[in-house]
Amino acid sequence: MVITMQPGASPEQIKSVTARVEHDGFKTHLVQGTERTIVCVLGDDRPMDPRAYEVLDGVEKTTRILKPFKLTSREAQRENSKVTFGGVQVGDTNVVIIAGPCSVESHAQLMETAHAVKDAGAQALRGGAFKPRSSPYSFQGLGEEGLHILAEARDQTGLPIVTEVMASQQVPLVAEYADVLQVGARNMQNYDLLRAVGKSNRPVLLKRGLMSTIEELLMSAEYIISAGNPLVMLCERGIRTFERYTRNTTDINAIPVLKDLTHLPVILDPSHGVGKWEYVAAVARAGVAAGADGLMIEVHPNPKQALSDGAQSLKPEKFAELVRQVKVVATGVGRE
Amino acid sequence: MVITMQPGASPEQIKSVTARVEHDGFKTHLVQGTERTIVCVLGDDRPMDPRAYEVLDGVEKTTRILKPFKLTSREAQRENSKVTFGGVQVGDTNVVIIAGPCSVESHAQLMETAHAVKDAGAQALRGGAFKPRSSPYSFQGLGEEGLHILAEARDQTGLPIVTEVMASQQVPLVAEYADVLQVGARNMQNYDLLRAVGKSNRPVLLKRGLMSTIEELLMSAEYIISAGNPLVMLCERGIRTFERYTRNTTDINAIPVLKDLTHLPVILDPSHGVGKWEYVAAVARAGVAAGADGLMIEVHPNPKQALSDGAQSLKPEKFAELVRQVKVVATGVGRE
Amino acid sequence: MVITMQPGASPEQIKSVTARVEHDGFKTHLVQGTERTIVCVLGDDRPMDPRAYEVLDGVEKTTRILKPFKLTSREAQRENSKVTFGGVQVGDTNVVIIAGPCSVESHAQLMETAHAVKDAGAQALRGGAFKPRSSPYSFQGLGEEGLHILAEARDQTGLPIVTEVMASQQVPLVAEYADVLQVGARNMQNYDLLRAVGKSNRPVLLKRGLMSTIEELLMSAEYIISAGNPLVMLCERGIRTFERYTRNTTDINAIPVLKDLTHLPVILDPSHGVGKWEYVAAVARAGVAAGADGLMIEVHPNPKQALSDGAQSLKPEKFAELVRQVKVVATGVGRE
Amino acid sequence: MVITMQPGASPEQIKSVTARVEHDGFKTHLVQGTERTIVCVLGDDRPMDPRAYEVLDGVEKTTRILKPFKLTSREAQRENSKVTFGGVQVGDTNVVIIAGPCSVESHAQLMETAHAVKDAGAQALRGGAFKPRSSPYSFQGLGEEGLHILAEARDQTGLPIVTEVMASQQVPLVAEYADVLQVGARNMQNYDLLRAVGKSNRPVLLKRGLMSTIEELLMSAEYIISAGNPLVMLCERGIRTFERYTRNTTDINAIPVLKDLTHLPVILDPSHGVGKWEYVAAVARAGVAAGADGLMIEVHPNPKQALSDGAQSLKPEKFAELVRQVKVVATGVGRE
Repeated sequence: MVITMQPGASPEQIKSVTARVEHDGFKTHLVQGTERTIVCVLGDDRPMDPRAYEVLDGVEKTTRILKPFKLTSREAQRENSKVTFGGVQVGDTNVVIIAGPCSVESHAQLMETAHAVKDAGAQALRGGAFKPRSSPYSFQGLGEEGLHILAEARDQTGLPIVTEVMASQQVPLVAEYADVLQVGARNMQNYDLLRAVGKSNRPVLLKRGLMSTIEELLMSAEYIISAGNPLVMLCERGIRTFERYTRNTTDINAIPVLKDLTHLPVILDPSHGVGKWEYVAAVARAGVAAGADGLMIEVHPNPKQALSDGAQSLKPEKFAELVRQVKVVATGVGRE
Repeated sequence: MVITMQPGASPEQIKSVTARVEHDGFKTHLVQGTERTIVCVLGDDRPMDPRAYEVLDGVEKTTRILKPFKLTSREAQRENSKVTFGGVQVGDTNVVIIAGPCSVESHAQLMETAHAVKDAGAQALRGGAFKPRSSPYSFQGLGEEGLHILAEARDQTGLPIVTEVMASQQVPLVAEYADVLQVGARNMQNYDLLRAVGKSNRPVLLKRGLMSTIEELLMSAEYIISAGNPLVMLCERGIRTFERYTRNTTDINAIPVLKDLTHLPVILDPSHGVGKWEYVAAVARAGVAAGADGLMIEVHPNPKQALSDGAQSLKPEKFAELVRQVKVVATGVGRE
Repeated sequence: MVITMQPGASPEQIKSVTARVEHDGFKTHLVQGTERTIVCVLGDDRPMDPRAYEVLDGVEKTTRILKPFKLTSREAQRENSKVTFGGVQVGDTNVVIIAGPCSVESHAQLMETAHAVKDAGAQALRGGAFKPRSSPYSFQGLGEEGLHILAEARDQTGLPIVTEVMASQQVPLVAEYADVLQVGARNMQNYDLLRAVGKSNRPVLLKRGLMSTIEELLMSAEYIISAGNPLVMLCERGIRTFERYTRNTTDINAIPVLKDLTHLPVILDPSHGVGKWEYVAAVARAGVAAGADGLMIEVHPNPKQALSDGAQSLKPEKFAELVRQVKVVATGVGRE
Repeated sequence: MVITMQPGASPEQIKSVTARVEHDGFKTHLVQGTERTIVCVLGDDRPMDPRAYEVLDGVEKTTRILKPFKLTSREAQRENSKVTFGGVQVGDTNVVIIAGPCSVESHAQLMETAHAVKDAGAQALRGGAFKPRSSPYSFQGLGEEGLHILAEARDQTGLPIVTEVMASQQVPLVAEYADVLQVGARNMQNYDLLRAVGKSNRPVLLKRGLMSTIEELLMSAEYIISAGNPLVMLCERGIRTFERYTRNTTDINAIPVLKDLTHLPVILDPSHGVGKWEYVAAVARAGVAAGADGLMIEVHPNPKQALSDGAQSLKPEKFAELVRQVKVVATGVGRE
């Protein structure tokens, strides 16, 4: 951390700052500039909130030098982490495709989708049993019944299952059925839930909050890993910006940036990222070209009747076409 | 809702859209424009997601006409809701000031703060026992011990207590001690928690998420009220924008807008809104001038030693000065 | 500036960085941390772009320590700048109100408005002759004829005139008529225009761009002052955020922040800040409570017939009411 | 346009609204809902600002149905526009690569870069002679001398030249030397400049403002085309968001969206979009995979000595590698 003193900071103020830093267990090094003095803090100050020092007399501002995340960082582990579930490995040279409906709506709907996405080349099945909806009047998911249906789809197709868990007390139930626990965007900073999935032994798919920075995403992954579960996959699914033509703005930059900062696998969800089915395939191709380890795609046998997210769901035949396109791009960038 | 058809939409497509809408229980009305046909949907279509119709063949886009919230709206209730706890009433002509530390750190710290804010004119005490922190390595709050200390401070000062609840299973415990349950910004769309506080009989202070729209805030209030608890206060606490000089951007517009859209009381938290103690008083005055029903202010007897949010906490004497300034502005705009 | 080296940076890389910095005319100071080495750059490095050093081998990132603006900063001048035009002084203890229509539409419209705002207590008249419109099909202003009408309104009412200049070649013409040259939000980084108004001897009202940071606003003021014209007033007029209920988000924080960072006067434009006339008075009061030196308000005798911005324009009687409210708040915070 | 009346709007208010709309030259159609009446406006109301009607008594809100752009839209022209300059065609099945330094710094620097990018496979040369810089103390470009050097580079390599024009009065000078006039992001809404390049017969590369929506970008293109110049290419170069790890956020969604909404060619500038050279190739590949018609890449023979944007500039050998990667992806998606 670097602490910049105000232009007229007195020697006493500077002394008092260094005393406080040293009291907190760090070494200091003073640098006298032409206009300002800066106090360099030496040692692993990651646990410190730099803003805590901004309140000391004579301090102008503080600046973090070390990145605040540790276990998730490339510095902690050079080689890529690989996460395996139900015979699928994510984080290797292959590109994994997870597909399925936004919500599990019925037995028939899920079975039809599961067989269709399998035939088209998906390696895992997604589907929500517990649904976070912004309106209390919207369909909230089938709950445990949805989990049963998902498990049956796995039995029929062999595809492992990715499904959302919305609260810590749901973790044991969902973990009983699911191969991967999904933490949704709105819960990315639900720390109670992060700790709970961190104590589970199921792999976790952590979606970036639509209001969250890359650094905050990594800090949330740090919660899970530091609670004991290293099997974390990160998912970029679009952020909220001023642009109104698309539902969200896919942060394509986040893919190479995350691959650089962390050893964890990175998945792209273009369905939420763009929010209109017409544009999903283009953004999916872009994600693979940028280096994503996998894709998560919403597919519905009849989007016109979908109870949620129909507008961004692909029909099975469109999805099959997307898989073909993605394969070509993946090969082009040296993936399988 | 208004459904706009594409320029070349065929009569069959239009017919199929109206059939679907009518099947969903609404009446329709066709309007033939010079370039496009639009389908007007008649009836209370609030529970519908307009995007669900965007996927129908020939549809260009859909537009909501009715606001999606009901119970929280001024249309549902013309007069202001008043929320009473521990002898304090919020939503009337008075301006209520809630003050205290970000976190309960110790018995001594809280007692000192509680007496100081009471003496300066605060009518309620805030303080976090359970703390949502972006880093797993940061201080996470004293937990239940913090609740004990808060209760003792209430006994000593008579100030009712506002404290955060972070997960649904914590609601019974926190409700045993607290006068007001605070739902934090990061949990504004934690629907499991919203339902749980909606089943409590304690008043709820619902903070706006840092990247949530005004409409989403009202929808989250709708969750609480529709679950049975009408005692909701809304809190603007700054949103995330591109501006980096302040921690957040206080959305001052939200105050008159919320007072117009809803009957619920509106509180401003300028401490989080601006994030630097030097600017808190100016933004607090602005909030009252704009029509806020109350303020929530972070106060710490020794911000330099605070375990969280020291940079935005006022010392008791600065807080007393803020109360004096706010009183003058409140009187100026016809409040007490 | 502080240059943070990568964890494994070699002594040669560090040496090469310090050599480059010294070649650029600065002194350096090395600080060896436990995990990283940092290179502190000593001297006035404001003209340097810190990113220029990020490309050197072994560099992880660079951090600015000095603020990049000079002439506009409080450090350059402790006391408030006062800007005087047509008998009005901005930047003193008084609060100045500038009012008038968005566009000059006709002789009758402007004269009616000018007399009305004068009677209600405005000290200066605004009105656009050249209008920046996002659509080429919208009304683009009366041009020079509009300037004539503005000058006549000044003759009749004695109110000095604030009007926008959109391009450098228009500066001589507009300066012939106007008392204050307004640089609009969309032109805040039109450097050709900034230099041109910097060579004029008219005061300049510089509006913040709708997605410009406070720092960028100050850098644009720096362009004008460094070109020779110190008579600059800054205007906060709302920024673009994700919130869709209001046209823009008034950055109320910017008022105390700007008053702290710079000696220049700060004006608030709540009409653009909120974009709906119903909310303008509340935000105007907030601005004065927060410390603004003046307000800029859109007033139209018949908003229903306005050729631009009718939705955010006040009728004269509503404006008179706003002036009364603002006076009470101004007195409450020790202004006139 | 659809005008939604307030719940309690009186018959007189509704009548007055329809009278006003009809007076403005449109037909109306009333739709009586269960809770609100809506007034549908029939006819080409694109030139109207919907907000103009929001001020009428009894109106709750207005909603645009037609997109506000005309000449730029796919409805106006189904097939892709092709823009040709110096033997290069943009908008066809090929992917065009424009490369070169941010600024022309010297004769030697530009010649070296020009030959290098040509050898690596670029089809056009970029380089700034007039530079918009946020600080008045930064290098502002070589001006006309830079144009001379660019022209010589074209003579030597045969590559056509793309360079920025910053003000309307510079258009004749720049058009004398350049093959393509670039309008920079900060000038996207400099309407004086848009009209001036619209009267030129040179192709225009219009960069999206970092604060501008897709719709605003198309409206700015509409300015140029409606002034007489149909040779417009659009360039996505990243938007400003809350994310701080990258310089901007590349809006990859904008590529398929623009290809859908308009017939104009779409170029991606990943150098500005991501802002760090390490990530440029990944985002460039993504852009081509998403359907971009071309790329614009910053290349510098010695980024460490670059006077601007060194941090995001590729060395020639890295650029050559990027071209190889992009070719593979282009082939994969059926481009050349």
